[in-house]
Amino acid sequence: MPEQLLIDYQIECTDLKRALAVAEEIALEQTVETPPSLVEDEFFQKSIIGQVIEAQEFTADSFKVGIAYNPEVTGFQVGQFFNVIFGNISLKKGIRIENIVAPDSILKSFGGPQFGISGVRKILQVHNRPLLATALKPMGKSPEQLADIAHEFALGGGDLIKDDHGLADQPFCPFKDRVSAVMKAISEARESTRRETFYFPNISGHFKTIESQLDFALDHGVKGVLISPFLAGLETVNYIAGNYPLIIMVHPAMSGSLFNDPKQGIAPGVMLGTLFRLIGADISIYPSPGGRFPFTPQDCQSINDALLTPDLQVKKSFPAPAGGLKISTIAQAALEYGRDTLLLIGGDLLESISELAANTRKIIAQFDRLFPEDQESTTADPAFSVFDCHSLRSNKQIVPRLRTHLKFSSDFSWQGRDTWDYKNTDGNSFHNVKRIELTGRFGEKTAFDVRYFEVQPKGYTSYETHRHEHVIIGILGLGTLIIGNRTLDLKVNDIAYIAPHRPHRIKNNTDHPFGFFCIVDHERDRPRVLDWRTSLCV
Amino acid sequence: MPEQLLIDYQIECTDLKRALAVAEEIALEQTVETPPSLVEDEFFQKSIIGQVIEAQEFTADSFKVGIAYNPEVTGFQVGQFFNVIFGNISLKKGIRIENIVAPDSILKSFGGPQFGISGVRKILQVHNRPLLATALKPMGKSPEQLADIAHEFALGGGDLIKDDHGLADQPFCPFKDRVSAVMKAISEARESTRRETFYFPNISGHFKTIESQLDFALDHGVKGVLISPFLAGLETVNYIAGNYPLIIMVHPAMSGSLFNDPKQGIAPGVMLGTLFRLIGADISIYPSPGGRFPFTPQDCQSINDALLTPDLQVKKSFPAPAGGLKISTIAQAALEYGRDTLLLIGGDLLESISELAANTRKIIAQFDRLFPEDQESTTADPAFSVFDCHSLRSNKQIVPRLRTHLKFSSDFSWQGRDTWDYKNTDGNSFHNVKRIELTGRFGEKTAFDVRYFEVQPKGYTSYETHRHEHVIIGILGLGTLIIGNRTLDLKVNDIAYIAPHRPHRIKNNTDHPFGFFCIVDHERDRPRVLDWRTSLCV
Repeated sequence: MPEQLLIDYQIECTDLKRALAVAEEIALEQTVETPPSLVEDEFFQKSIIGQVIEAQEFTADSFKVGIAYNPEVTGFQVGQFFNVIFGNISLKKGIRIENIVAPDSILKSFGGPQFGISGVRKILQVHNRPLLATALKPMGKSPEQLADIAHEFALGGGDLIKDDHGLADQPFCPFKDRVSAVMKAISEARESTRRETFYFPNISGHFKTIESQLDFALDHGVKGVLISPFLAGLETVNYIAGNYPLIIMVHPAMSGSLFNDPKQGIAPGVMLGTLFRLIGADISIYPSPGGRFPFTPQDCQSINDALLTPDLQVKKSFPAPAGGLKISTIAQAALEYGRDTLLLIGGDLLESISELAANTRKIIAQFDRLFPEDQESTTADPAFSVFDCHSLRSNKQIVPRLRTHLKFSSDFSWQGRDTWDYKNTDGNSFHNVKRIELTGRFGEKTAFDVRYFEVQPKGYTSYETHRHEHVIIGILGLGTLIIGNRTLDLKVNDIAYIAPHRPHRIKNNTDHPFGFFCIVDHERDRPRVLDWRTSLCV
Repeated sequence: MPEQLLIDYQIECTDLKRALAVAEEIALEQTVETPPSLVEDEFFQKSIIGQVIEAQEFTADSFKVGIAYNPEVTGFQVGQFFNVIFGNISLKKGIRIENIVAPDSILKSFGGPQFGISGVRKILQVHNRPLLATALKPMGKSPEQLADIAHEFALGGGDLIKDDHGLADQPFCPFKDRVSAVMKAISEARESTRRETFYFPNISGHFKTIESQLDFALDHGVKGVLISPFLAGLETVNYIAGNYPLIIMVHPAMSGSLFNDPKQGIAPGVMLGTLFRLIGADISIYPSPGGRFPFTPQDCQSINDALLTPDLQVKKSFPAPAGGLKISTIAQAALEYGRDTLLLIGGDLLESISELAANTRKIIAQFDRLFPEDQESTTADPAFSVFDCHSLRSNKQIVPRLRTHLKFSSDFSWQGRDTWDYKNTDGNSFHNVKRIELTGRFGEKTAFDVRYFEVQPKGYTSYETHRHEHVIIGILGLGTLIIGNRTLDLKVNDIAYIAPHRPHRIKNNTDHPFGFFCIVDHERDRPRVLDWRTSLCV
């Protein structure tokens, strides 16, 4: 039995025959989009067109029909996946997605949250209680004013501060100034609290802008970001989850028309729960009932269920109810939502900045009383990559200074560029290597970095593997490249290309230094260091 | 009077007082998203919070209110612009956007269509009549089968073939195979017809995938693409319009819930007309009335009006009604929609491939009779960039062969890499330069290319400027870099960085060759060659 992507649609109509006819139309429209006469071949019928597999009465004036699609029609891309499940039929009336069951191939392609609840808790070292978050606002405040809010909240022991999702890169509050100021304020607060408070800046703009924002954020020690998938792109969220060591918090801005009509669109639990989790949200914000937005307790329950249902393939995500929570009622809300919730309180907490730290402290203490330590969360997700060892690019010691001309000295150094010993805390994965960052980290906008490495006699680099590629050019002495099971000699001006995921190491078996340029993508994944004997991760 | 972004919202209610109260809530929610007590300062009141400027009865149970926003709150980004006009309030009931008037600063930032109607007509050399388009489908056909359809349609003199928007990069029809096969088929047909038929492949996936698809398409002579903004991202469309010489045709997939309820969402004319045009659509597809989708003639008229309204800042876009047009009625539809329309006919035309060319020819002949040459379109848009001079990367002569080891020879060549004379058709902008492509064009996935250039005695490279940066490393002899008004000597192992948009040239004033590596972003803009004396474009 081949894999199937199962979608339950609610179809507004009062008889089964009509429901089945609409279901057949959907199965055609969402795949071949063509008259039946053009697709009579068995191949189309069996492998391309959706199959109507069930239908049953759902409400007094609607039926629920199940359609099974071949997952291959999605091309295993997020955009085309949404196109198959709801692209064209979003333009029709009386059709709503009520449930989705994605097969392993889709789960594996999209991957779900990178960190999930257990990962976020591990980084925060908070295991027993719901998390407390607030938002930096209102739009119009300067980076410094927002940093003051962040400072007080962090001082009170709050868990997470996010930008208001309307803070983009406006002239009155530029992204970089905001991130620098807020991270500095939080770091100061940490000196008293000795605990982690996250700051999640809002990521926006087209993809090139987003990439540079992510990079800037990582360089400033940011551990997660806020993003609105319906503004920045559903694909973009999934790309970030797959490529950046950042916790992802998603905001439902611009998605609302999907939920306006209970007979049309995508059910809130499916969109803000199942689908946001599937594409990589570690935390999903949604409007809490009784606040400013018309979400019902049932809507919220369905979102929570979708985010928290255990699944072997995909980690759990934090539900984050927001929009109108009050200091006076948040403890009650915590009890109602339960331990694995992130409660987002904005306006009411921010009303008085002088009481912000104290109010935050009070709420956290309430949470701690309500959720004692010994009843630790049982959330168990697979191992995740930790931050301690993320991106090579967060080295802050390098003074950024862009230069047009880097003059070479005969001792193999360059004016204006410092030499770094390429140290390792374990002390055993590489040996006697020095590194000079030449271009790419000093304000250039190139898609690549150029570095110089020098391996001393008997020295070697880590035995490692990564997705990004290397281009290596020898400029001094003779080196040995071990790549997979090949061994190559590298002479001056020889060029080596190391393909993705090829384990490799560079050694110097001579009595003279071996120097080489190594060019890599500026945006790159973190290397995994391998055990030399077993080729397994150390 | 500062600039204003004016949005008319329809608010479902029966009295003016309530309409004004909701309008004030919107003005707060979409900007500061905070209780009024936190934003009493004059700065917030005057510069950040939206201003309710008018309200009037609209229908029996709704009012229309006008809100003026400071354009700066949008950060001049597409995503944040949508967030301001409809982000959070999309989650409320009974609010719909009815009209948008964008100020010059927004029009200038987003730019609108690159080509517009006049640009598309100029490339096609069709000025008198509506354009005829079809779609490659159904999904499930192989690239070769789709190429056969394209061949017949092109042979019949059709104007534009687009992919069905469900054709992504599925295993049964990979993007690259499809583009190669279809472009080849069209090129063969062109030998008989001697006229242009466009093929617009469907662009999908996350941004890195989209970039590589755009690049592949450009390399194969493609002049435009199909994209679904609600799947691939509204920001992505605007980015492509601003950075790639490609006509953009947009598809409304996944947008439909915005139009489901006449009291909620964004009016079809605003979304599929004004806004798609604003972010750069040259052609906007929408469901024609009477087809498979419930759009009314009034909806369609409003879309057409929004695409075709003359505007000094933003070019006009082609309306492209689709979804259920027939061979027998298309001439009538052409008359109803008028000259500046692109009519998209799918299933009915594709039903018989043996008659496809003849039927296409017949429709074009009908169009020509209905719209005689002498009544040429008066659409006049500003000048647009032409295709003749696109991407450096379309050089097909290089045999792609990825190598792990490029062995250096003492004559400054590398095994497996050919040397190219860096020729110029004008013969005067550079002189005595050879080039070797080393890595990046042979199947690597790096974000950069490494090339070797050698400037012979008295030789020089073009005096040029571009957005992308260079990193240059001397490896042989001594060179001179002229950058802006600086002159630098480049010795072996000296590194030079050339910032964006800095005019530069490399000269060899010595009697020996000067050789250097030049590293550039793989995705890059085309250099503009400057006149050495005036620094103006040649």
